[in-house]
Amino acid sequence: MNFPSKLIEDAVTEISRLPGIGKKTALRLALHLLKQNEVHTEALTLALTRMRSEIQYCKTCHNISDAEECSICKSHRRDATLICVVEDIRDVLAIENTNQFLGKYHVLGGVISPIQGIGPEELKIESLLNRIDTVLIDSPIQEVILALSATMEGDTTSFYLAKKLKEKGIKVSTIARGIPVGGELEFTDEVTLGRSILTRINYSSD
Amino acid sequence: MNFPSKLIEDAVTEISRLPGIGKKTALRLALHLLKQNEVHTEALTLALTRMRSEIQYCKTCHNISDAEECSICKSHRRDATLICVVEDIRDVLAIENTNQFLGKYHVLGGVISPIQGIGPEELKIESLLNRIDTVLIDSPIQEVILALSATMEGDTTSFYLAKKLKEKGIKVSTIARGIPVGGELEFTDEVTLGRSILTRINYSSD
Repeated sequence: MNFPSKLIEDAVTEISRLPGIGKKTALRLALHLLKQNEVHTEALTLALTRMRSEIQYCKTCHNISDAEECSICKSHRRDATLICVVEDIRDVLAIENTNQFLGKYHVLGGVISPIQGIGPEELKIESLLNRIDTVLIDSPIQEVILALSATMEGDTTSFYLAKKLKEKGIKVSTIARGIPVGGELEFTDEVTLGRSILTRINYSSD
Repeated sequence: MNFPSKLIEDAVTEISRLPGIGKKTALRLALHLLKQNEVHTEALTLALTRMRSEIQYCKTCHNISDAEECSICKSHRRDATLICVVEDIRDVLAIENTNQFLGKYHVLGGVISPIQGIGPEELKIESLLNRIDTVLIDSPIQEVILALSATMEGDTTSFYLAKKLKEKGIKVSTIARGIPVGGELEFTDEVTLGRSILTRINYSSD
């Protein structure tokens, strides 16, 4: 594309570096900003600049935060004996939206992926193990829930973590894999269906 | 969504004001910027700020430009007797990419749309008529090509412009509507197919 202006070309180039945004979409966004009042562009750039330069990561769980410790880690109403391990901050938001989990989190910052060159030392695994070791005497960690994606990388990470955590004598669980609520049996893939039979839930034990 | 940080919440709110970007995509983009080096965010915000504050519009054709007159209007290799009227700058880029047009442009900045409250005075129509009146004696405008969308608003604008321009004794044409190249007859809608028969091109007159 030949742009009539270097300024718009630069803006389109920068916008199209964002994931999932191509040159055409970037141009549409740039032209949208040009049509709007200048204050919109100022608000957007200020919010991005402040976010990038001022955001902090919680020293305990590595979730993003406005302070040294995030609001979840600081809260006394959350069960400190229960830790849910997730891949990134989007997973924290997703789980928080369910209102089903009242413990604390630990954000790994990714999953083990040899193809992408991500090993255990690139993730916040050491930090998780230290956290379990150095926890206060009055609230030792009872259970670690692994809430990672049901992909090969997620499963690898889960197995790795489960081994490390069991060595410390901690109860480790993983979120259930099965048929999504509202899903129909005949349209479920064989692997999921097979797993959901193997890991069936016993009604009588409730 | 409850965000763990006001900074990321502000960034997501501002990003999701852009057209076609919802809260989830905005969060994905914000987290992407957080993962990248800070220079990427700086480059993006600088490009947007500069684009919004420094961009100019060509005084002749209203295309965006880095100077008072755009490169197309300035060029002596373009046919100044031929003006192509388009809705916005994206259309200029699209036509330039075809390499089929060597005249100059006139960007209306929209089309007549009573529903959206856009009348002829909101567009650069007066400016187009003045441009035709005040053109130099050695290159009077010979033909105006209307290249507007084949929508009701586009057609309304075309009829309005054609009437005004014919009063000035100028040849007015519109880009052909018909079956797109590669399109199959049986999948073409009736209106397009009907029009393409009515406005058929006579081989023998070539």
